Amino acid sequence: MQKLRMNLSIRQKEIPFVVGEHLGDTLCQYLLGEFPEHSIFVISDDTVNQLHGAQLTSHLSAHPGFKELFSFPAGEASKNAETTASLHDKLLSAKAGRDTVIVAFGGGVTGDMAGYVAATLHRGVQLVHVPTTLLAQVDSSIGGKVGVNHAAGKNLLGAFYQPTAVFSDIHYLSTLSDEEYINGMAEVVKYGVILDPELWQQLEANIAAVVKYDPSFIEPIIRRCIQLKIDVVEKDEKESGLRSILNWGHTVGHAIEKLSQYGVKHGFAIAEGMNIAARLSHQLLDYPQELVHRQKALFANLGLNTVHLHDYSLDDIWNVILTDKKARRQLPRFTLMRTETKPELYYAIEKQELEDAYQTE
Amino acid sequence: MQKLRMNLSIRQKEIPFVVGEHLGDTLCQYLLGEFPEHSIFVISDDTVNQLHGAQLTSHLSAHPGFKELFSFPAGEASKNAETTASLHDKLLSAKAGRDTVIVAFGGGVTGDMAGYVAATLHRGVQLVHVPTTLLAQVDSSIGGKVGVNHAAGKNLLGAFYQPTAVFSDIHYLSTLSDEEYINGMAEVVKYGVILDPELWQQLEANIAAVVKYDPSFIEPIIRRCIQLKIDVVEKDEKESGLRSILNWGHTVGHAIEKLSQYGVKHGFAIAEGMNIAARLSHQLLDYPQELVHRQKALFANLGLNTVHLHDYSLDDIWNVILTDKKARRQLPRFTLMRTETKPELYYAIEKQELEDAYQTE
Repeated sequence: MQKLRMNLSIRQKEIPFVVGEHLGDTLCQYLLGEFPEHSIFVISDDTVNQLHGAQLTSHLSAHPGFKELFSFPAGEASKNAETTASLHDKLLSAKAGRDTVIVAFGGGVTGDMAGYVAATLHRGVQLVHVPTTLLAQVDSSIGGKVGVNHAAGKNLLGAFYQPTAVFSDIHYLSTLSDEEYINGMAEVVKYGVILDPELWQQLEANIAAVVKYDPSFIEPIIRRCIQLKIDVVEKDEKESGLRSILNWGHTVGHAIEKLSQYGVKHGFAIAEGMNIAARLSHQLLDYPQELVHRQKALFANLGLNTVHLHDYSLDDIWNVILTDKKARRQLPRFTLMRTETKPELYYAIEKQELEDAYQTE
Repeated sequence: MQKLRMNLSIRQKEIPFVVGEHLGDTLCQYLLGEFPEHSIFVISDDTVNQLHGAQLTSHLSAHPGFKELFSFPAGEASKNAETTASLHDKLLSAKAGRDTVIVAFGGGVTGDMAGYVAATLHRGVQLVHVPTTLLAQVDSSIGGKVGVNHAAGKNLLGAFYQPTAVFSDIHYLSTLSDEEYINGMAEVVKYGVILDPELWQQLEANIAAVVKYDPSFIEPIIRRCIQLKIDVVEKDEKESGLRSILNWGHTVGHAIEKLSQYGVKHGFAIAEGMNIAARLSHQLLDYPQELVHRQKALFANLGLNTVHLHDYSLDDIWNVILTDKKARRQLPRFTLMRTETKPELYYAIEKQELEDAYQTE
């Protein structure tokens, strides 16, 4: 028996994140500059397509390789292997070869699924995210997590696949419903709570501006959130450690989403998840009570307090968490905090401990 | 508009390639050492399962996390998105979480498909290749290309996904049919022709030992081929340049496979493809006629000369090549050689040039 070794060190990759208003032309110039001979396809959902599809494709038509926009019914229910296969079919019928750029144009569902389609076509084609929701701009378009849901759970199929570039056009935010806009704000609060005390205070001090879409206020906030996530992902792309700080509130949050059969939107679910994570952190790691209260009050002021935790039984929540992919063997692991910006990752939680935090609601 | 940047440099990865006989216990010790708390699943095809499944699973049963072997009908027809989905279903039903090792146990079809299943489950779980054919041991298990076929063509869906380790047990080769064994020898000849003149001469000088399975002769040959491919992949994992040297003979070879509806095995098809690539290289780049003849004679002596090129029309071959994913815009690109070990990559070929090489058959 003999052993040989392969040593791989993958080259550095630099990804530009462009933030601004009315970026359609900028996007087209970028594609003309970087991928002048590629074929360009857009993947979107019916809602975004109806609102903004014609305008984007009119910009992209200045690229000689622009081919088509494919859209699918909006909503989480489309994010599955069947829609992925149907997009692969359409792309391959339209002769999408290796020199293809897929523009993922929409919210988190579109970015996750179009990203997965790009990751798995010809062993990976170019992917450019054009996120249109606040949630997608500050979170899901950053960091390379792509994938779809499976009957057994959310995001169980997928890959780490980095985009070539991300264009966050805040103009699109003006067409979001109030609910969808605030939904994205939960992740903004998360960045403040776990990484950036100054951002947290800024949100608290400007509730009116936060709640209402105000470009001059929101653009620097979005840039700051993107930078915060970039810093984390640069240090731990594949989530072997630090990156799991971003799961603050997500363990119980995902359980609430699942138990509501995705009737509760992500931001509202993780807001409640962050509240319970803060109480657990207080119980187990002396996370200051004041911070528990400040986070809860901020969510209440933003209208992110619509989930009633006790609508879901502790047993149901616990069982979902146990079958969640984040549960390694035996006890589920939570992202907790000791104090501002001091996380405690992969903290094993007993059912009784979760119950205590659940009861203190 | 402002621009932020993410800089990713992915960490080094070292992959062990173990070559030997009767490695079942070695494999289990490796899994116990590296992944003591993981769940272990084996993916195989019905033929390999029937021949060797019981023995492998008996070895793996010494690992407390060993769960199950899933097998699918042997053959290229199984290598598609449907079988992938069914394997995902089975794995998730059996509670395969993030801490899962998938052992891909079989030939090229199994390695490609089980690799793709592993790459896309939970954004990637551990993958260990246990290739059982000569072709898989010297080629398809090395380098991280995984994927499945699509109605529009072979390997159109997939990813680059490196295994954690590869265990090439030459004992399995003793149960291959003569045809399957010689099929794998085409890739061995390829390494000699494009990378290693000494290996080429060694094959020529030992036809009897090459044709017949002889462990003491074949084991060092396999190790040498693995090392040659490792050297190429280390330099160019994602095939942005050098790695395409390995496509020698594959452009026409794939066309023959496709036109025969995969009735012609890969090795036999690429042998004829290498002959035509050698003639093209002679026509266009003065590749020595002597080498064209030596390669052809070696294939004939090995019985790898069963494809009759003129059974396929030049027009059909050309049309398949044009729709092949290797064809970038306009003219198809071939891997040619100037002389031994001096490749000319991505050489654009006109139809008339291919026809000249076709006619000199």
